[in-house]
Amino acid sequence: MIKTDILIIGAGPTGLFTVFEAGLLKLKTHLIDALPQPGGQCSEIYPKKPIYDIPAFPEILAGDLVKNLMDQIRPFDPGFTLGERAETLDKQEDGSFIVTTNKGTEHHAPVVVIAGGLGSFEPRKPLIPNIQNFEDRGIAYMIKDPEVYRNKKVVISGGGDSALDWAIYLAEIASEVSLVHRRNEFRGALDSVEKASELAKLGKIQLFTEAEVTALHGKTELEAVIVTHNDKEKGETYVEVDAFIPLFGLSPKLGPIGNWGFEIERNAIKVNNAYDYQTNIPGVYAIGDVNTYPGKLKLILSGFHEAAVMCQSAYQLINPGKRYVMKYTTVGGVEGFDGTKKEAKKEVVQSIMA
Amino acid sequence: MIKTDILIIGAGPTGLFTVFEAGLLKLKTHLIDALPQPGGQCSEIYPKKPIYDIPAFPEILAGDLVKNLMDQIRPFDPGFTLGERAETLDKQEDGSFIVTTNKGTEHHAPVVVIAGGLGSFEPRKPLIPNIQNFEDRGIAYMIKDPEVYRNKKVVISGGGDSALDWAIYLAEIASEVSLVHRRNEFRGALDSVEKASELAKLGKIQLFTEAEVTALHGKTELEAVIVTHNDKEKGETYVEVDAFIPLFGLSPKLGPIGNWGFEIERNAIKVNNAYDYQTNIPGVYAIGDVNTYPGKLKLILSGFHEAAVMCQSAYQLINPGKRYVMKYTTVGGVEGFDGTKKEAKKEVVQSIMA
Ligand SMILES: Cc1cc2nc3c(=O)[nH]c(=O)nc-3n(C[C@H](O)[C@H](O)[C@H](O)COP(=O)(O)OP(=O)(O)OC[C@H]3O[C@@H](n4cnc5c(N)ncnc54)[C@H](O)[C@@H]3O)c2cc1C
Ligand SMILES: Cc1cc2nc3c(=O)[nH]c(=O)nc-3n(C[C@H](O)[C@H](O)[C@H](O)COP(=O)(O)OP(=O)(O)OC[C@H]3O[C@@H](n4cnc5c(N)ncnc54)[C@H](O)[C@@H]3O)c2cc1C
Repeated sequence: MIKTDILIIGAGPTGLFTVFEAGLLKLKTHLIDALPQPGGQCSEIYPKKPIYDIPAFPEILAGDLVKNLMDQIRPFDPGFTLGERAETLDKQEDGSFIVTTNKGTEHHAPVVVIAGGLGSFEPRKPLIPNIQNFEDRGIAYMIKDPEVYRNKKVVISGGGDSALDWAIYLAEIASEVSLVHRRNEFRGALDSVEKASELAKLGKIQLFTEAEVTALHGKTELEAVIVTHNDKEKGETYVEVDAFIPLFGLSPKLGPIGNWGFEIERNAIKVNNAYDYQTNIPGVYAIGDVNTYPGKLKLILSGFHEAAVMCQSAYQLINPGKRYVMKYTTVGGVEGFDGTKKEAKKEVVQSIMA
Repeated sequence: MIKTDILIIGAGPTGLFTVFEAGLLKLKTHLIDALPQPGGQCSEIYPKKPIYDIPAFPEILAGDLVKNLMDQIRPFDPGFTLGERAETLDKQEDGSFIVTTNKGTEHHAPVVVIAGGLGSFEPRKPLIPNIQNFEDRGIAYMIKDPEVYRNKKVVISGGGDSALDWAIYLAEIASEVSLVHRRNEFRGALDSVEKASELAKLGKIQLFTEAEVTALHGKTELEAVIVTHNDKEKGETYVEVDAFIPLFGLSPKLGPIGNWGFEIERNAIKVNNAYDYQTNIPGVYAIGDVNTYPGKLKLILSGFHEAAVMCQSAYQLINPGKRYVMKYTTVGGVEGFDGTKKEAKKEVVQSIMA
């Protein structure tokens, strides 16, 4: 059982910044996310695109925003349960909560924060009859740890950035990489398309375009896939594989959170206006894209504010009656749980002689 | 008469970011600030200190935060009335407002935003009998344009960062710079103290420590100051000057805003909770440190959020009935009023040949 002070469901920008605000209040945090990496929409949907409305960044790539947030929260040493979906929320007799994931991992905390964005990112799966049989037995819909594919034969399918980027990445470490795409054209950042093109020319990526994976073979583990070509004359190709990774995008679904007893309005969790973003279940907060209240804006900068406000309220729940005197970070510094301390250089007092 | 869509009183971080959010909605802005430079507390009190809780900046100097905000808002070409205090707010028959400064500058806008922080920064003045007579006739409590002092004889008094930094700066352009301080020790950033010390040794700054300016002479314009030394034996020094600049710090006072008819609570303006940060005077908003509502945090990141929310509401007031469809900056780009346009690189669609 993982124990923490504030359990955060969703490691998007809002969830990540919550770690920082909680840390300033000396509260420990742990994050759960269905995705294998932190960053939510920013990492999954548009890591290479610039955002223009993050305050004091005239321009920042979404991926860099996530990187910066990870740097900022590092001193507070948050725990992560990645690649697992929070499935159930159980209130305990003492008012605390146990949250269990689809893989059975249990988390226990006095305060739970839903920072679930548009929902848990779930893969779009190709329609291949026996595909479920091979899930986690050669088939993965996202890549958690690319090292798993070292010296393996891998087939990736898809025509977007994820498919391109992983094919490029695995070309270096896998023994064979094939990329299968229904069309001839790929859609992605210019540098990804160019790099993949180059690797294809060098034979480091085997390309199957205007083609689809239509069948899977194997006893218990996946052993081969059948690639069917649009061009009838080309027919089918039998490809021996250790892994097949369909990367057709992930789309967010509110999912299990919808059944936890919250007031739901237009696919979002209603909170008590903007007082402290608590839901109708005391001790459970909802911040960022996942919540709604009059005037709500689904902006990253609003998630940051909501995280700061929410942590102040959680502090009171966790430390009833204790008075917290807010200190500016500039004045009080930042004391990490990892022993680090950042603080402003003190002014010097010194006489000046002519 | 200066005309704009949203008139912002206070050019601190909150007021500055309001320019950006308004600009995204195609609304023009103009800022008034009592200080000669933008940035509010960040510029005036702690420009060289690091802030640690600006989201996605593990560390940023307050002065750099202001610089970045100025860069971010540049495309929206805001107007500035600096070094003037907003003195009166007059509601017009058509519901719009005229705001007049202490120097008589008039501003007209349908929406007014008070982003006044802890108040208008007002100088602490030394107690010298006839000092008022020479205000703006040789005496200034802040420096708006250092070029005014080119080839002039200047006396600065004070022992903190402002006094040090301006003495250093003017040493290059004024014909004579004297620095008068009651004590022997100066208090400031290490590099400022060292630099001032060096210039004093080189004779580029004339130092009077353990001394005070006690009298002023001149017909209509200031002509000389009397420096009285603590050490009775040293007595008095008569210093011919063109300018005397006492820099004893500026402290914020809610000031005139307190008399405009707002509901005031603990020196702050009450707003309608966090719905749109409108005050009890419709069409006038209060955001950032200057407002209060249940759960209010006086943090920079909260001012940013409040600015975004407030601008949405102002858009409705200015464009009644018009539906605004929010577009992410990443998706819609940022179109400046200066003809510039920033937008994300489009994805390419390209075929890859093996
Ligand atoms: C193309 C695009 C461009 C954008 N441009 C901008 C912009 O310019 N400016 C701006 O401010 N915003 C922009 N946004 C919106 C911005 O990305 C979101 O506001 C932001 O990501 C919300 O952050 P969040 O942390 O609240 O949620 P998310 O980023 O959605 O993260 C939520 C996380 O929670 C996880 N999760 C949900 N439920 C569960 C569960 N049950 N178990 C485990 N994990 C779960 C999800 O997997 C996800 O990773 C854009 C969005 C898109 C798609
Ligand atoms: C030493 C110190 C350290 C800090 N550290 C942090 C930190 O680490 N993190 C954090 O989030 N915050 C910190 N703060 C607080 C932060 O600086 C404020 O929250 C922020 O400056 C508020 O921004 P604002 O734009 O609302 O107001 P301000 O920065 O106060 O700006 C308001 C402006 O309005 C002007 N004004 C007011 N009335 C009038 C008028 N009638 N006419 C003309 N002009 C007027 C003032 O002159 C001023 O320039 C710190 C503050 C101090 C002093």
